[in-house]
Amino acid sequence: MKAQVIQAFGNPSVFQIQEIPAPEVIPGHVLIEVKATSVNPIDTKVRSGFVKGVAPDFPAVLHGDVAGIVRAVGEGVTKFQVGDEVYGCAGGFKGMAGGALAEYMLADADLLAYKPKNLTMEEAAALPLVAITAWEAMFTRGNLTSGQNILIHAAAGGVGHVAIQLAKWAGATVYTTASSKEKLEIGRRLGADVTINYLEESVQEYLQKYTNGKGFEIVFDTVGGENLDRSFEAAAPLGTVLAIAARSTHDLTLLHSKGLTLHVIFMLLKMLEKEMRKEYGQILEKVTNIVEEGKLRPLLDSNIFTFDEISKAHEHLESGKAIGKVVLVNKW
Amino acid sequence: MKAQVIQAFGNPSVFQIQEIPAPEVIPGHVLIEVKATSVNPIDTKVRSGFVKGVAPDFPAVLHGDVAGIVRAVGEGVTKFQVGDEVYGCAGGFKGMAGGALAEYMLADADLLAYKPKNLTMEEAAALPLVAITAWEAMFTRGNLTSGQNILIHAAAGGVGHVAIQLAKWAGATVYTTASSKEKLEIGRRLGADVTINYLEESVQEYLQKYTNGKGFEIVFDTVGGENLDRSFEAAAPLGTVLAIAARSTHDLTLLHSKGLTLHVIFMLLKMLEKEMRKEYGQILEKVTNIVEEGKLRPLLDSNIFTFDEISKAHEHLESGKAIGKVVLVNKW
Repeated sequence: MKAQVIQAFGNPSVFQIQEIPAPEVIPGHVLIEVKATSVNPIDTKVRSGFVKGVAPDFPAVLHGDVAGIVRAVGEGVTKFQVGDEVYGCAGGFKGMAGGALAEYMLADADLLAYKPKNLTMEEAAALPLVAITAWEAMFTRGNLTSGQNILIHAAAGGVGHVAIQLAKWAGATVYTTASSKEKLEIGRRLGADVTINYLEESVQEYLQKYTNGKGFEIVFDTVGGENLDRSFEAAAPLGTVLAIAARSTHDLTLLHSKGLTLHVIFMLLKMLEKEMRKEYGQILEKVTNIVEEGKLRPLLDSNIFTFDEISKAHEHLESGKAIGKVVLVNKW
Repeated sequence: MKAQVIQAFGNPSVFQIQEIPAPEVIPGHVLIEVKATSVNPIDTKVRSGFVKGVAPDFPAVLHGDVAGIVRAVGEGVTKFQVGDEVYGCAGGFKGMAGGALAEYMLADADLLAYKPKNLTMEEAAALPLVAITAWEAMFTRGNLTSGQNILIHAAAGGVGHVAIQLAKWAGATVYTTASSKEKLEIGRRLGADVTINYLEESVQEYLQKYTNGKGFEIVFDTVGGENLDRSFEAAAPLGTVLAIAARSTHDLTLLHSKGLTLHVIFMLLKMLEKEMRKEYGQILEKVTNIVEEGKLRPLLDSNIFTFDEISKAHEHLESGKAIGKVVLVNKW
């Protein structure tokens, strides 16, 4: 089968199209005919060598997110049959069967769910990693409940745009930030109650305006870096900050004086542990239901790439100019 | 009545014995004849001006922890009667009725519980702030449950020695660190399953020895500063770090790569909020039961001070040489 393979870490040009053996199905797994995948920041960090600890061995087929059709079912799998349309985040990392940048992908059935019927393959491939991340952050870890207020940074980001919709689905009051009119309009269309241009208003200004200076019960930081300091500032006393990017150094004084909780969510950890994977498949089943109820839709960047164009797709994500998810469709 | 008063922030010599009006009882409060108090690090930080945000107005009577006898009961208080022996952490901070360094203390009844019958007044006065802090950290925030493993830093510290006993009471397996044979022996006597001299073993060494390198499910950092980095290192993937001192700057990379939760507990926050105080009185009621069951005893430093010796008591705590709690008994 055809695959985009890397033989070493490097810049986006490191991908090479190669003919490699199609994987054989093994117990607990299914073989998926890959229809689409999407790029997540972690895929670019694996490719560049920034996160070697979670990278697969060379030659490596990258990418976790997949949508496709089941073509073979391994021993012990009862959930899926040949011909089922499925999606999940299910490979491309250390110790896993293989990535999605190929004609076929071998995937642990525990990590998969039925593709939502009202989504195309490209749309479905955009969701798994970001939806699981947002779910784990807000519900598994953050215990977000109806009536709470939550500030979600990066309205048009991969995780941010899904978090807005899931938080509204859960009955929260959603505030969201972005840097442009266009992105704030996206946040509004996705259901955010209040949109904030963080270039025009300081944290103190919007805390005063929307919370009487008290702060938000939950702050979801999907950005990291200096933004994490702004998240600490925006949280109410005894509040919670959810972070998905925290490889940086921070003054924790505000965590102390406000008695905050910081949950750092690194989605890969449970994916890499066989015993924990089921949790992600179960989250995706719920996500499928929410999508089919019309409460959640992925936002796709206007550039859709083919598997031949993987280098461009990575470059586009790394440029910071993408809006929503960068998706690739398999035309092989 | 006699009181130790401060008129300005400063070193331990800033206290002055003064004759001030005894407080009158007000609704929801009781008037306590103070028998004993104890020094907590936060009291020394209020005195020095390090935490002005939670300091009472001048002239100020400091100290939260109190044990004594109810001498008057305010309107609406049904829980206590004149003559009851009570304890609590109930004053000496911003907006509160008054501190414990006086013959009488006016205290919100919501913050009090009956003194354990098997403790002296000095012993009872040692417990409230540290027991509430340990409870809030391990149970309210950290959800410590039977069978989990927990690493508690500072076996002979104010919070540490109480945490060891409460964690054992809850059925956890308790590992504890200290810097001397004497302190480790205290940890052992208080029930710790394993004691670790952190000057003799590195975090990696004791992780390997006791957890196969995996780390502890919960790490309770009662120390702060650089020790917080060691706590991040000692936590297992998806584990929890509880911290009570986090006014410092830290690299959060390990929080990211292990997907950790960091709860910072600042005990004063709920004490200063009228609506939240009841929670602390309820925790103390449970603590009273546990003490009376013989499962929890405070560790008192061998130096017991009188109220006249408040400066020496603060100096002793600040010297870092105290073992367990520094207690003051009222001989006025």
